[in-house]
Amino acid sequence: MAEVTGPRTGVAIIGLGGAVATTAIAGIEQLRLGTIGTDGLPLAHRTELAPYESLVFAGWDLDGSDLAKAAAVHRVIEPAQLDAVAEPLASISPWPAVVDPAYCRNAVGANVVPVGPLRERVAHLRDDLRRFREEQSLDTVVVVNLASTEAWPDRTSAILGDLDTFEKGLDLDDPVITPGMVYAYAAITEGCPFVNFTPSLGPDVPALLELAARENVPVAGKDGKTGQTMVKTVLAPAFRSRALTVEGWYSTNILGNRDGQILDDPSSLASKLDTKGSVLDSILGYDVDDHVVRIDYYRPRGDAKEAWDNIDLVGFMGQRMQMKIDFLCRDSILAAPLVLELVRLVAEAARRGEGGAQEQLGYFFKQPMTSDGGVPEHALHLQEQVLLDWLDRG
Amino acid sequence: MAEVTGPRTGVAIIGLGGAVATTAIAGIEQLRLGTIGTDGLPLAHRTELAPYESLVFAGWDLDGSDLAKAAAVHRVIEPAQLDAVAEPLASISPWPAVVDPAYCRNAVGANVVPVGPLRERVAHLRDDLRRFREEQSLDTVVVVNLASTEAWPDRTSAILGDLDTFEKGLDLDDPVITPGMVYAYAAITEGCPFVNFTPSLGPDVPALLELAARENVPVAGKDGKTGQTMVKTVLAPAFRSRALTVEGWYSTNILGNRDGQILDDPSSLASKLDTKGSVLDSILGYDVDDHVVRIDYYRPRGDAKEAWDNIDLVGFMGQRMQMKIDFLCRDSILAAPLVLELVRLVAEAARRGEGGAQEQLGYFFKQPMTSDGGVPEHALHLQEQVLLDWLDRG
Amino acid sequence: MAEVTGPRTGVAIIGLGGAVATTAIAGIEQLRLGTIGTDGLPLAHRTELAPYESLVFAGWDLDGSDLAKAAAVHRVIEPAQLDAVAEPLASISPWPAVVDPAYCRNAVGANVVPVGPLRERVAHLRDDLRRFREEQSLDTVVVVNLASTEAWPDRTSAILGDLDTFEKGLDLDDPVITPGMVYAYAAITEGCPFVNFTPSLGPDVPALLELAARENVPVAGKDGKTGQTMVKTVLAPAFRSRALTVEGWYSTNILGNRDGQILDDPSSLASKLDTKGSVLDSILGYDVDDHVVRIDYYRPRGDAKEAWDNIDLVGFMGQRMQMKIDFLCRDSILAAPLVLELVRLVAEAARRGEGGAQEQLGYFFKQPMTSDGGVPEHALHLQEQVLLDWLDRG
Amino acid sequence: MAEVTGPRTGVAIIGLGGAVATTAIAGIEQLRLGTIGTDGLPLAHRTELAPYESLVFAGWDLDGSDLAKAAAVHRVIEPAQLDAVAEPLASISPWPAVVDPAYCRNAVGANVVPVGPLRERVAHLRDDLRRFREEQSLDTVVVVNLASTEAWPDRTSAILGDLDTFEKGLDLDDPVITPGMVYAYAAITEGCPFVNFTPSLGPDVPALLELAARENVPVAGKDGKTGQTMVKTVLAPAFRSRALTVEGWYSTNILGNRDGQILDDPSSLASKLDTKGSVLDSILGYDVDDHVVRIDYYRPRGDAKEAWDNIDLVGFMGQRMQMKIDFLCRDSILAAPLVLELVRLVAEAARRGEGGAQEQLGYFFKQPMTSDGGVPEHALHLQEQVLLDWLDRG
Repeated sequence: MAEVTGPRTGVAIIGLGGAVATTAIAGIEQLRLGTIGTDGLPLAHRTELAPYESLVFAGWDLDGSDLAKAAAVHRVIEPAQLDAVAEPLASISPWPAVVDPAYCRNAVGANVVPVGPLRERVAHLRDDLRRFREEQSLDTVVVVNLASTEAWPDRTSAILGDLDTFEKGLDLDDPVITPGMVYAYAAITEGCPFVNFTPSLGPDVPALLELAARENVPVAGKDGKTGQTMVKTVLAPAFRSRALTVEGWYSTNILGNRDGQILDDPSSLASKLDTKGSVLDSILGYDVDDHVVRIDYYRPRGDAKEAWDNIDLVGFMGQRMQMKIDFLCRDSILAAPLVLELVRLVAEAARRGEGGAQEQLGYFFKQPMTSDGGVPEHALHLQEQVLLDWLDRG
Repeated sequence: MAEVTGPRTGVAIIGLGGAVATTAIAGIEQLRLGTIGTDGLPLAHRTELAPYESLVFAGWDLDGSDLAKAAAVHRVIEPAQLDAVAEPLASISPWPAVVDPAYCRNAVGANVVPVGPLRERVAHLRDDLRRFREEQSLDTVVVVNLASTEAWPDRTSAILGDLDTFEKGLDLDDPVITPGMVYAYAAITEGCPFVNFTPSLGPDVPALLELAARENVPVAGKDGKTGQTMVKTVLAPAFRSRALTVEGWYSTNILGNRDGQILDDPSSLASKLDTKGSVLDSILGYDVDDHVVRIDYYRPRGDAKEAWDNIDLVGFMGQRMQMKIDFLCRDSILAAPLVLELVRLVAEAARRGEGGAQEQLGYFFKQPMTSDGGVPEHALHLQEQVLLDWLDRG
Repeated sequence: MAEVTGPRTGVAIIGLGGAVATTAIAGIEQLRLGTIGTDGLPLAHRTELAPYESLVFAGWDLDGSDLAKAAAVHRVIEPAQLDAVAEPLASISPWPAVVDPAYCRNAVGANVVPVGPLRERVAHLRDDLRRFREEQSLDTVVVVNLASTEAWPDRTSAILGDLDTFEKGLDLDDPVITPGMVYAYAAITEGCPFVNFTPSLGPDVPALLELAARENVPVAGKDGKTGQTMVKTVLAPAFRSRALTVEGWYSTNILGNRDGQILDDPSSLASKLDTKGSVLDSILGYDVDDHVVRIDYYRPRGDAKEAWDNIDLVGFMGQRMQMKIDFLCRDSILAAPLVLELVRLVAEAARRGEGGAQEQLGYFFKQPMTSDGGVPEHALHLQEQVLLDWLDRG
Repeated sequence: MAEVTGPRTGVAIIGLGGAVATTAIAGIEQLRLGTIGTDGLPLAHRTELAPYESLVFAGWDLDGSDLAKAAAVHRVIEPAQLDAVAEPLASISPWPAVVDPAYCRNAVGANVVPVGPLRERVAHLRDDLRRFREEQSLDTVVVVNLASTEAWPDRTSAILGDLDTFEKGLDLDDPVITPGMVYAYAAITEGCPFVNFTPSLGPDVPALLELAARENVPVAGKDGKTGQTMVKTVLAPAFRSRALTVEGWYSTNILGNRDGQILDDPSSLASKLDTKGSVLDSILGYDVDDHVVRIDYYRPRGDAKEAWDNIDLVGFMGQRMQMKIDFLCRDSILAAPLVLELVRLVAEAARRGEGGAQEQLGYFFKQPMTSDGGVPEHALHLQEQVLLDWLDRG
């Protein structure tokens, strides 16, 4: 990896070998080389945040391949672009990951921490973070969850309800505690800001929010708002503004990357659909009875996700209209820059001493966290305003 | 027309027999009957504005048919809905219109003011407005231009540059003065707020803005932002926000109503394309070299305009994405409620004593007027905020 | 019903009150009145077949409403068109239907034959057919299955394997025998040609094909090829002809009519998907691994089914192309004329003395019957040629 | 270029450096290397035709760059694929071309035959062909027109009406004679079969058809049927078959390659639209009044042409339906294999001694030639049958 001067921000990624992670890292290496510009990076002009070039990457993955090999498999980046950064990517290999087949059936690999008590796993992860910080002389380490979607446990379990019971759950290896929670617990106790870019619960349970508040560590999530849902939160406010009633909204997604394969498992799919489904009614102010969201694994599309939407609108005098949207997008290309901005933003929150749930980062998520469990704002332009106001206050 | 109690607002429409005008009027009659709700009326909850039921309609059209007959021709409204309001609509017949084939070739009809000096035409129109106000005991009369798109004259002509030269141009029947300007001049001198919902220049020349400021009469325009352009000003800010570069935007429209027929004439089309073309670059902050806008007359579509857009986006690491939008909309159904809100809003501005160009109404227009000729805001959500702030200040 | 002169063909429909049946019957009444033409009727020029006006309708439905009421519910036909034929439609009320919740869970209604032994049900249905023939002085009675999709029983059951075991199954009320088979058995033994327009098995099992052959009664099916599959069997032969390899084909359907509601039940859906899925590989001559077909119940669409297809193609030098098709079709409007033609065609086959599986009618079906159980031709233009040749031979 | 053994067929291409020509040649070189298969080559299984590997390429272009350079500019082929065949491509450089700005304004370049009398140009081209045949020891030389679309001259000019007057026109340098005709005249008099893959008139005038018949030289054309029109001639026969009336068909094309740039010139565009427009009515058997075809130059698309179609259909009982098709195709990838098959087929026709207009090749063209000037068959499946029958007769 190229030399980084000045303060250095570590980024420890869960799912380091995945399409989004390798795209983000390859992008930073390209920026260092000056072979790409800041297209797609929403906060490139915010120079008060940590420079992209100051980011240092590491992390966990159940596939132990180095990142040059991993990136090549995903076919997100053009071969020529990949060649240019093959050396720094090849120098990074993932640490063994903490996994639990009960929560993510389709994710398999050999580079895993041996099964053992939860407390041991936590200790293992904290060691990883401490070693990373020391070996790389890092000022801050941010942990980012980019792993495959986990199934959701019973969220009403008392174990998740407050920190005390959660700690006891850890002692007793309670099965309601998912790998995503183990990572979040380890990061927060280690003082590392945590970004949950996946639909998994991770830190989004009362117990861990309590911990983050107590330790004053920023946490942000959940589920990156990249393609179809992003567009939905742009159009729905406009329909509301023009008083066009949404009678129905049919959304289907076809994708062929590892993410798609994981979602072929119904229990993982359920988590994903839950985060996708909630945005519409709260923006519109009424229930859309016919809001259907489909995700289908379809290999020819690869990482180039396609989202097709049909929207039925009722206008003046009860007259009907329709809108169809076909978004031929690139999942990882949309996600990677958001991940990079989130790293810079939670590092900034940590610098400001603002811990706990970062509500001002709702702009980046399908299901934004709120400290009080209230209904979050979903309209993209309002979320953007909140974010910019927070930045300007800094 | 049904009885109106309380203060009454007159609405004198240029193009009274057209699809938008008859839809708006039929809608108000339905609201009076209670057979429709306020779907599609963006400011229905703003009860400080004039009640919809207080509006009284009249106006000019080169086709003299009563509005029941005119509405039936446009096929915008279901026959059953039309039947319910046939009586009040049949009771309204358009006054003779002021026309000039040099500016609108495809618009033909027999119900016209005999050709004569411009000053005579102005006097004729002012008489119409005065008579309307008196006969109907109206508190305010708003004039709305819904006529077919006129070609644009040479906008740099000195005649249009200030009020003095314009007055002389009227004296000398200067051909640079279009029918739309004659209507605007008559309305403003008669103290009637003027809404220009068409792409025609109308009051949007320095001479008439000077007149509106001097007489303290509100004027608003131009070109109602209904379908494709509305969507464009919703999506473009989001692309900018997410730092997705718009490499190209191809827009085609097919429509089969009278509006479409008029635009089959290249000189009218040029005016329309000009107002449609300007929005993108100013929102994005850079020039989109490949911004193509097409409008094609296609009879099977009737009033049910179809807008197809293809957008080419460049994201992180220079990777390309595409979005396609097919909007099967109803031109008049989208336009009529905006016209009704504009009437209420310019009446409110007049009540507040705020004359001249109404910049806070940019939300409704493809090419919003600015008092100083500066570049207007085009992003829909920012326009909406300006409008709501203005209302709240009232 | 209007007077029919000349030979009269009876049409006894299973699912008489459904959208397709009522559309077909209303259409024939309109043709009698001369208020519509033969748009959508593929064999209108084949005057050697029974005149449309000679058809006399009756049938079974678990909803006992008369057809004027039933047709109004489906909203397929414009109210004005429906009014014109309300009288003849109101004069037809369905006979009680034979149903079995084990095979069609979402179909419920009160107008049913009391549960009893299978042999009694057969006798009941044969009585209906005999009475219809006599009362209406019919030359031929054709039975058409338009009922909701049934789940498929175990097709490998010995009961269905030959006529002898099937007869014993009837004696013993074997649960593998579905209502669709009961109707088919009754029709064939009564000498009535049978058209199976649904994905249900109906007569398409060895036992009943044996019966049809022995009794020399024409049977045809199964599953009418109306919208998306019809288009698929038009495009796929062209892709093959141009040597464009289909790498994947993603098809989704959204519909909101009763058919859609029935298919919300997974076991009915499975039958439907099976008939939709089989066409592609046999036309192309290779397996399309990523052929995905989705059907979703979505109420805003009503009977106006929407089918969206994405096709991934590989051309010269391995280069990829995509085609998207959005078909905003009308399910019953496409189906009704095919049903009417099938009635005329099986009546013609009966006249010619050609019983058993009617292979030349594959043009109309998603899963055409073959007498020997072989793979049928699916390409529409080749099916059309076979049909026209058969007609010309007549 | 790799060694060719056995009989060798020369291919002299007008527009040798263009996207289609370089794609076809690169493809053949890849086939020689065994790095691609025969995807997209419709007659790959017809081994009685000349082997693809026996083709030897040369030709004219107004840009003198060697084909490796030319191919790189078009960006049709992946860089890696291009590298593999860079050497044989670099070894081919175009001969100077015969051009006339009056017929193709946007086509400019330096590698041109000096302006001179038409007879001199003919002689020059014949020399090229003779030299090619001798130097490469070719059995046959086929000439293929892939040059940019020319404007059409006045087709009713007496000069084009028979061979005698045409010869006099050549003597007198009559301006009605286009470059495309000069090439065709030279080829035919030199005994070389001629394929006109462009919308230019070329040999499709009575005088040159007379010449081809007299000299017994096969000629075929015009305008390759690749994308949107190909699909149109597949769907329209199906709509006819199902008695769905086409009320309107709106087609727009966006493309950014040199072809698109040429068509930005209205006179070239007119030729193209003419060949695209004629297919529909003759397939359907009635006039589609609202058949609109648009072609727009849009650079982001490059060679990856996009064709969007909207079709309005009227079905049973006069009910309306719509179909939308978005074909994201690759212009040159679709065209190149058709060119290669045409070369093999006219060579076969020459071998059989069948000269004049090759009607059996209508399968490949938007506007197929007929010897008697009659209306050609346009339905793809019928054209395919004619072609296969002709092959089987061979």
